[in-house]
Amino acid sequence: MGTIGFIGLGVMGTPMAANLVAAGHRVTGFDLDRDALGRLAAAGGTAAASVRDAVEGAEVVITVLPDHPQVEEVVLGTVLDVVAEGTLLIDMSTIRPETSAAIAEAGAERGVRVLDAPVSGGQTGAEQGTLSIMVGGAEADFAAARPVLDALGTTVVHVGPHGAGQVVKAANQLVVGGIYALVSEAIVLLEASGVDAGTGLDVLAGGLAANRVLDLKRHSMVAREFRPGFRIDLHHKDMGIALAAARRADVALPVTGLVAQLVAAGRARGYGALDHSALLTVVENLSGRA
Amino acid sequence: MGTIGFIGLGVMGTPMAANLVAAGHRVTGFDLDRDALGRLAAAGGTAAASVRDAVEGAEVVITVLPDHPQVEEVVLGTVLDVVAEGTLLIDMSTIRPETSAAIAEAGAERGVRVLDAPVSGGQTGAEQGTLSIMVGGAEADFAAARPVLDALGTTVVHVGPHGAGQVVKAANQLVVGGIYALVSEAIVLLEASGVDAGTGLDVLAGGLAANRVLDLKRHSMVAREFRPGFRIDLHHKDMGIALAAARRADVALPVTGLVAQLVAAGRARGYGALDHSALLTVVENLSGRA
Amino acid sequence: MGTIGFIGLGVMGTPMAANLVAAGHRVTGFDLDRDALGRLAAAGGTAAASVRDAVEGAEVVITVLPDHPQVEEVVLGTVLDVVAEGTLLIDMSTIRPETSAAIAEAGAERGVRVLDAPVSGGQTGAEQGTLSIMVGGAEADFAAARPVLDALGTTVVHVGPHGAGQVVKAANQLVVGGIYALVSEAIVLLEASGVDAGTGLDVLAGGLAANRVLDLKRHSMVAREFRPGFRIDLHHKDMGIALAAARRADVALPVTGLVAQLVAAGRARGYGALDHSALLTVVENLSGRA
Amino acid sequence: MGTIGFIGLGVMGTPMAANLVAAGHRVTGFDLDRDALGRLAAAGGTAAASVRDAVEGAEVVITVLPDHPQVEEVVLGTVLDVVAEGTLLIDMSTIRPETSAAIAEAGAERGVRVLDAPVSGGQTGAEQGTLSIMVGGAEADFAAARPVLDALGTTVVHVGPHGAGQVVKAANQLVVGGIYALVSEAIVLLEASGVDAGTGLDVLAGGLAANRVLDLKRHSMVAREFRPGFRIDLHHKDMGIALAAARRADVALPVTGLVAQLVAAGRARGYGALDHSALLTVVENLSGRA
Repeated sequence: MGTIGFIGLGVMGTPMAANLVAAGHRVTGFDLDRDALGRLAAAGGTAAASVRDAVEGAEVVITVLPDHPQVEEVVLGTVLDVVAEGTLLIDMSTIRPETSAAIAEAGAERGVRVLDAPVSGGQTGAEQGTLSIMVGGAEADFAAARPVLDALGTTVVHVGPHGAGQVVKAANQLVVGGIYALVSEAIVLLEASGVDAGTGLDVLAGGLAANRVLDLKRHSMVAREFRPGFRIDLHHKDMGIALAAARRADVALPVTGLVAQLVAAGRARGYGALDHSALLTVVENLSGRA
Repeated sequence: MGTIGFIGLGVMGTPMAANLVAAGHRVTGFDLDRDALGRLAAAGGTAAASVRDAVEGAEVVITVLPDHPQVEEVVLGTVLDVVAEGTLLIDMSTIRPETSAAIAEAGAERGVRVLDAPVSGGQTGAEQGTLSIMVGGAEADFAAARPVLDALGTTVVHVGPHGAGQVVKAANQLVVGGIYALVSEAIVLLEASGVDAGTGLDVLAGGLAANRVLDLKRHSMVAREFRPGFRIDLHHKDMGIALAAARRADVALPVTGLVAQLVAAGRARGYGALDHSALLTVVENLSGRA
Repeated sequence: MGTIGFIGLGVMGTPMAANLVAAGHRVTGFDLDRDALGRLAAAGGTAAASVRDAVEGAEVVITVLPDHPQVEEVVLGTVLDVVAEGTLLIDMSTIRPETSAAIAEAGAERGVRVLDAPVSGGQTGAEQGTLSIMVGGAEADFAAARPVLDALGTTVVHVGPHGAGQVVKAANQLVVGGIYALVSEAIVLLEASGVDAGTGLDVLAGGLAANRVLDLKRHSMVAREFRPGFRIDLHHKDMGIALAAARRADVALPVTGLVAQLVAAGRARGYGALDHSALLTVVENLSGRA
Repeated sequence: MGTIGFIGLGVMGTPMAANLVAAGHRVTGFDLDRDALGRLAAAGGTAAASVRDAVEGAEVVITVLPDHPQVEEVVLGTVLDVVAEGTLLIDMSTIRPETSAAIAEAGAERGVRVLDAPVSGGQTGAEQGTLSIMVGGAEADFAAARPVLDALGTTVVHVGPHGAGQVVKAANQLVVGGIYALVSEAIVLLEASGVDAGTGLDVLAGGLAANRVLDLKRHSMVAREFRPGFRIDLHHKDMGIALAAARRADVALPVTGLVAQLVAAGRARGYGALDHSALLTVVENLSGRA
């Protein structure tokens, strides 16, 4: 396979690009942050001077960007004007399904094949190449992308047409955000009732209430340690995407609608840079307990 | 150990009493349902003619009753008047923490030692002796009850003072109810977006959104099979207990407050006898999709 | 008309009893607070030594008590054992509809005619005799009670069978609590957006968003003056009644379920003795703005 | 005053343009709908062939458009390129505050003075010239716009800087939507409890729960008459604006977050073209009562 043009070398993109290099791909990358370009070069990739330089002549373009305005600017503003017909564009950013669909449509007009492929698994998953990757787009394009994606994640699933990857990611984030809220309410109830929260949550973790959040985070939550991990600011962005996806699909999600406001409260209270488990502090504060 | 007086031989109580017999305890039981008395006798227990007959002379009394009015009637109306000082009363019903505390207080006035010990694990757990049992009360009384409880469950935990067992059960039920609502919203979003829900939930089950409900119920939920399992009617009762526990502990649980109304909607819509996973139908209906 | 036995001479009961005296009724009252008895005597009523003394021989008994345990104790514990057949018992406390129905049933067994007749309008309405009174019970009993109730309020409406008065009061309180939450959210949004809240609310008060809460409380809310008025503690009690009424009627009230938790948060945060408009502080706090 | 260029001659725009003509202004208008152009001409205005024709040379431009994409297309795509420096652009559409702010900024770069001036009062208010108009922007520009706006509404208020008009409109709509939900829950509780809803709501309308929605709509709601009025589709759009405004202002609005989903449910269930009071059907359906 030829060169991969890689746009967006942040906390996630840098180790992902490095994993592609390690898997034998030629990677030419760009980021506005010059330090990130240095890290890419150190990992064996090629630092480009611009988006245009990074993607010109690439057979595959990967974008890992913060939100839809950046994706729109990079893809609609440059990539689609530069790459050859038949190029495969894999957008691994987490954005609204409707933006993914619009970009796929714009790509189709230029003969560029587009996939939306958001990930979960965080920085650790990116570093270890164990991400879950949810892919929306044409079956044949998914097959073509498979060798690249397999270097990045262990769970790589084609979930449906353009935008479907984003919808699955949105569903994932609404469930995760909601579980954080529920575990927080359980902790507040236990503690306010004079029950040791650690002991109580141990029981919950052994029954039908068991969940990954309890497994990974109950000790740190009870200890009020909220180092990220995944920042509340990002989960706030993702709850907005979930509600936008619901609006596009014409469905009502009442619990998600409420949880989104609790996550927003976390950001409004100044916890945006803390781990999303800090939703506990929002719930505690509501009852004057923090 | 001497005789166990066992009150309440329903779906849960009957196999629990049988397990106690099988473990070598002498069990004298009572229930208003004559058939239940026959099943107890068939299992090797002794059928009593009344609550009074069942508990008179017992060293341990176990109650497994539907809700607080039955517990109050049996315990305050008869048991405490009949049993000897030093008797150990283990109430394994799921009721409000405040009722458990009131019963413990009434017991203390008569020299009766009381534990609240609600269970989770359902009919299967009761039959196989693999229940989770959350126990509130004095440490010494918990130690005394241990040989009996070990015949009924595999996770037997002392979680705090009188009522604490009920609080942990309430916390368990609010998390379970909330997760059902969240998984339902995820399914509705996926399907309305044209994504195969089974495929999407498989991805969720592999990441941070993973939970026991997804593991056990996602296939039946996507197939709309709602055979109980645990009935919505009972979960509706339990959400009421969770909110009563929050009121007693003087805390606010916003997500639980909303989920309780969705469970109430399930009952109001006539799904009370279905499995609690039928919360999916409530969420679907809200968007006119069922 | 003969003597009225009046039980419960608090902030509401004292001026109500005085209005009955002023209207020419003979009132014999009782309260556990001796000062209250002095005030009744000063107003021209007769202070009794006990509930029994107050109601023995009365043709009409009125109860104005804090919550259902007091009503149950006074009515079931004493009044129904003491009064003659045909006595009219008007319970003007705000309690759960199911308790009102149970008391009416107990009354019927003794030949005592019972009405539930909760009020709205607050201390001012009680003093000025301008209460709204919502009456549940038999039409004929309502007609018989009319001369008494007309001395207490200007809007006296028979709304349905036993418990119906409580249901209408519950509906009133859920709408009022919800409007406080909505106005609070409007204020927080306006202020956080840099808009003068007073000016913004003036516009709202002139359109479809207009409501009595805006009319009476917007200036004090914007100024953060929360002198009661009607205490959050009482509204917390009333939200519990509304949810209990919903449970009894087998309906789901999602917004009420959430608002009840916000009111609970007010109490949990220590605002119980403030006016219910202090719900604004709960909503502000959620966003870290107070 | 010189010519007014008027873009958007729908249900609201047509009578507004006619009122401007009646007040002595010269109005040149454009709409994609040719019939609308005919109505403008019949009212004494001038029909233009395009946006460009309508606004070229105008001293004041008014836009009354469905949502932000149309406003962006008309204003950013044409108006700002065509009009002279110093022109006053009054956008009376209901859109997100952030779009209003962005348009004001783009205007400033061209020397065009911009106001956001959304309205409430509906078709009737537009026809009778009795709209409430909430204006954001510079004080001097508001003063300049005053003669025009006074021909359209009776309550014309300058509420703050660019976007402030939209924020006040958003606050208005979240309160109105929430009150519809609360009144719906009250009706469902009353009816399910066997209380005549009309009688019960009459009592509510006389006390602290009183509000304009109860005044204007309680009879039609109890009768299940949902002719618009203001369509659920539009209120759904407006709830989205309210939540976007909250996100921009960095505040959490929990009740609004939930009510937005109930309004979304109305649209999802197919009630989009009904009056927003049809939220009652959503709430009823939740409990299986419609």
